[in-house]
Amino acid sequence: MKWWLDACKVPNADVKKQAQERQLQLTKPTGSLSVLENVAVQLAALQNNPQPNVNSPWITIFAGDHGVMQENISAYPQAVTRQMLQNFATGGACISVIAKEYAATLQVIDCGSVGDTYEYAGVERYCIAQGTANFVKQAAMTEEQCMQAMNLGCESVEKAIAHGASIYIAGEMGIGNTCSASALSCLLLAESAEQLTGIGTGINAVQLQHKKDVINQAIQLHQHAVGTDPFKILCAVGGLEIAAMTGAYIRCAQLGLAVVIDGFISTVSALIAVRLNPEVRQWMLFGHQSAEYGHRRLLDELDADPLLKLNLRLGEGSGAGAALGIIKLACSLHNHMATFAEAAVTGEKV
Amino acid sequence: MKWWLDACKVPNADVKKQAQERQLQLTKPTGSLSVLENVAVQLAALQNNPQPNVNSPWITIFAGDHGVMQENISAYPQAVTRQMLQNFATGGACISVIAKEYAATLQVIDCGSVGDTYEYAGVERYCIAQGTANFVKQAAMTEEQCMQAMNLGCESVEKAIAHGASIYIAGEMGIGNTCSASALSCLLLAESAEQLTGIGTGINAVQLQHKKDVINQAIQLHQHAVGTDPFKILCAVGGLEIAAMTGAYIRCAQLGLAVVIDGFISTVSALIAVRLNPEVRQWMLFGHQSAEYGHRRLLDELDADPLLKLNLRLGEGSGAGAALGIIKLACSLHNHMATFAEAAVTGEKV
Repeated sequence: MKWWLDACKVPNADVKKQAQERQLQLTKPTGSLSVLENVAVQLAALQNNPQPNVNSPWITIFAGDHGVMQENISAYPQAVTRQMLQNFATGGACISVIAKEYAATLQVIDCGSVGDTYEYAGVERYCIAQGTANFVKQAAMTEEQCMQAMNLGCESVEKAIAHGASIYIAGEMGIGNTCSASALSCLLLAESAEQLTGIGTGINAVQLQHKKDVINQAIQLHQHAVGTDPFKILCAVGGLEIAAMTGAYIRCAQLGLAVVIDGFISTVSALIAVRLNPEVRQWMLFGHQSAEYGHRRLLDELDADPLLKLNLRLGEGSGAGAALGIIKLACSLHNHMATFAEAAVTGEKV
Repeated sequence: MKWWLDACKVPNADVKKQAQERQLQLTKPTGSLSVLENVAVQLAALQNNPQPNVNSPWITIFAGDHGVMQENISAYPQAVTRQMLQNFATGGACISVIAKEYAATLQVIDCGSVGDTYEYAGVERYCIAQGTANFVKQAAMTEEQCMQAMNLGCESVEKAIAHGASIYIAGEMGIGNTCSASALSCLLLAESAEQLTGIGTGINAVQLQHKKDVINQAIQLHQHAVGTDPFKILCAVGGLEIAAMTGAYIRCAQLGLAVVIDGFISTVSALIAVRLNPEVRQWMLFGHQSAEYGHRRLLDELDADPLLKLNLRLGEGSGAGAALGIIKLACSLHNHMATFAEAAVTGEKV
C-alpha cells in the first residue's frame, strides 16, 4: 500500500563515466562549461543514454485549494485557482507558453478545487476534496485523501512514461499554497514561521505578519502529533497538489525518469519525497531559485544549486520550465560539439 | 575620424511604457516574472517594437593573437587561436552549436592572428597585424591598428543590420586574451593585477602569480602615458579582437541594435565602449556572469546584473549565446501570455 517506500532505479554509472569522458574531449578548456557539463553528464546517467536529450519534456500542473484561505492569507481570491486551470488549458498562462516554447506536453490536473462541478477541455478533474481543511483548526487532509493525491502524481508519471517523456516537471496552482508550503517547511525543518515565510504572490508587511502568525498557530496545533514523520506532516498542513507532486517525484525515481524541480512549493514536495525515500534525490535536477523567502533554506537542505536565479515567484512550474532551455542547450553542446581530434585542435599544455 | 564619439540612438520611451503596461495585464501576480519582464520591456524599447523578439540573432566572433604570449601566460599554445577559427566555421565549437540552437547567423572574423596566409571557408581574414605587440615591452597596438580593429567591429554591425538582425552578440577568441583584458581592467579601474586577474582557460597557482606579475609590469610601463584615456589604454594593453568588440558595441548603439554582452573580456570591451561614449550603456543587455575572477567587479562598474550565472569561463560569446534562450522565452511570454481580461482571471485584491 505504501508504494512510495519501494526502491528507486539506480542511475547508470557506466553511462555517466562515458559522458564525463566525452566532455573531456570536447574543444574547450577542461571544465569551462561548468554547470552545462554537469547537467549533461547527470542527465546521461539518468536517461541511460550517453547522448542525453530533452526531446519530449512532460509538464503536469497539479491544482488544489486550501482551507487555510479562511484565515485571509493571500492577495488573490480563491476563485483564481479554477480560473487559472482554464488559462493553463487554453494556452494563456505562463507555463502554457513555456510548454509551447519547448515542445512539452502539458497535463493539467485538478486534485481538488473549491466550487461546483465543471468541465473544462484539457483539465482532468478529480475531486478528492473541495480543497483541504483549514489546518489552523484540524489536519488539512485525512491520510486517505493524502494517499489519493499522491496516487494522482504517481499516475501522471506513469502516463508521461507511456507517452515517451524524457524529462518530467511538476508545477502547482493553488491560491494560498505558499502558506501551506511554509507550514510544511517549518515542521520538516523544525523552524519557526519567521524563517520560512515569504510574500507568495504578493502581500504587504502587515499581511505577511498575519501569515506568519497563522503558520505559527498551525505549528503549535500539529507539531506534537506529527513529530518528524513526513507523511503525517504532509497530511497535517499540506495541500492536495503538494501531495500529488510528492507522489510524482517518488514515482519518477522508481521508474527512472529525470525530474526538474521548480520553486519554493515544488521544493517542499521534493523534500518530503526525499524524506520518505532518500534515493529519490538523485533523480532531481533543480531548475530555479525562487524569490520566495525560505527557498534557499530548503535548497540547502537538499544540497541543491539551481540552474537559474531569475528571481521568479510565480509557481506553475515556470522556473523549472525556463530551465528546460538551458538543459536542452547543455545536451546540444554535449552531443554536437567537436572533439579535439575531430577538429584538429591542440589540447591543454601538460 | 573618431566615429565612435557620434551620438547614439535613443531607446523608445513610449514603446517601453506600452510594454510595461502590457506586463501589468498578463495573468500572473504583478512582478512575479521579475527579470523576464524587465528583459522584454527593455528589448521592446530597444527594438522600437511593443512585441520584442529574437527572431534573427547575429553573433560575430572576433579573433586575434597576443604578443604578451611571449611571457608564457596561458595554458594553451598560440596555434589554438587559428585552429579554433576553423572550428567555429565548421560548426564544432561551443558558439557554433549555440548559434544553430537559436537560429543565429554566425560570422567569424580574424582581426589578426599569428601565422602564414590561409583560406578557411567561413572565416573572414583581416591581417591588421600578426597579433599585437608584447605589451610588457611596448604598446600592444598603434593608434592606427586599434582604429582598424574598431572599424572591423563597426562594419560587422552594419552588415548585421543589413541582414535584418534583431539582436547582436560579439564573442572573442584569442589565446592570451584574459591577460590583456585584466591589464585593461587594471588601467580602467586604477586597480592592481591582484584584484582583476583570474585563471582564464585554466592555469595553476604559480602560473597565476606569474600572470599577475606580468600584468603589474605592464601597468608600470604604461600607466603614466595613458592616464584615464580609454582609447590610449586600449592601444597600450588591448587586443585586436577586444578593440573590434568595442567598435561593434558602439556602432550597435549608434544604429539602434540591442547587444548582449558576454563574459569577462566582452565586458572589458563594453566598459571601454561606455567610457568612450556613455550613451552606449543603454543598448546593452548582460548575458552571463563568468567564473573569471574580476568579472563581477567590471559588472558593478557598469551597474549590470547578468541574466545567467552558470559559472562558464569559455568566452566565444558562449555566455551571451546561452542567454539568448532566456531572452527568447521572455519575449514569448510577453507576447503570448493572456491578459486578465482575455482569460477572465481575477486580478490582485485591492
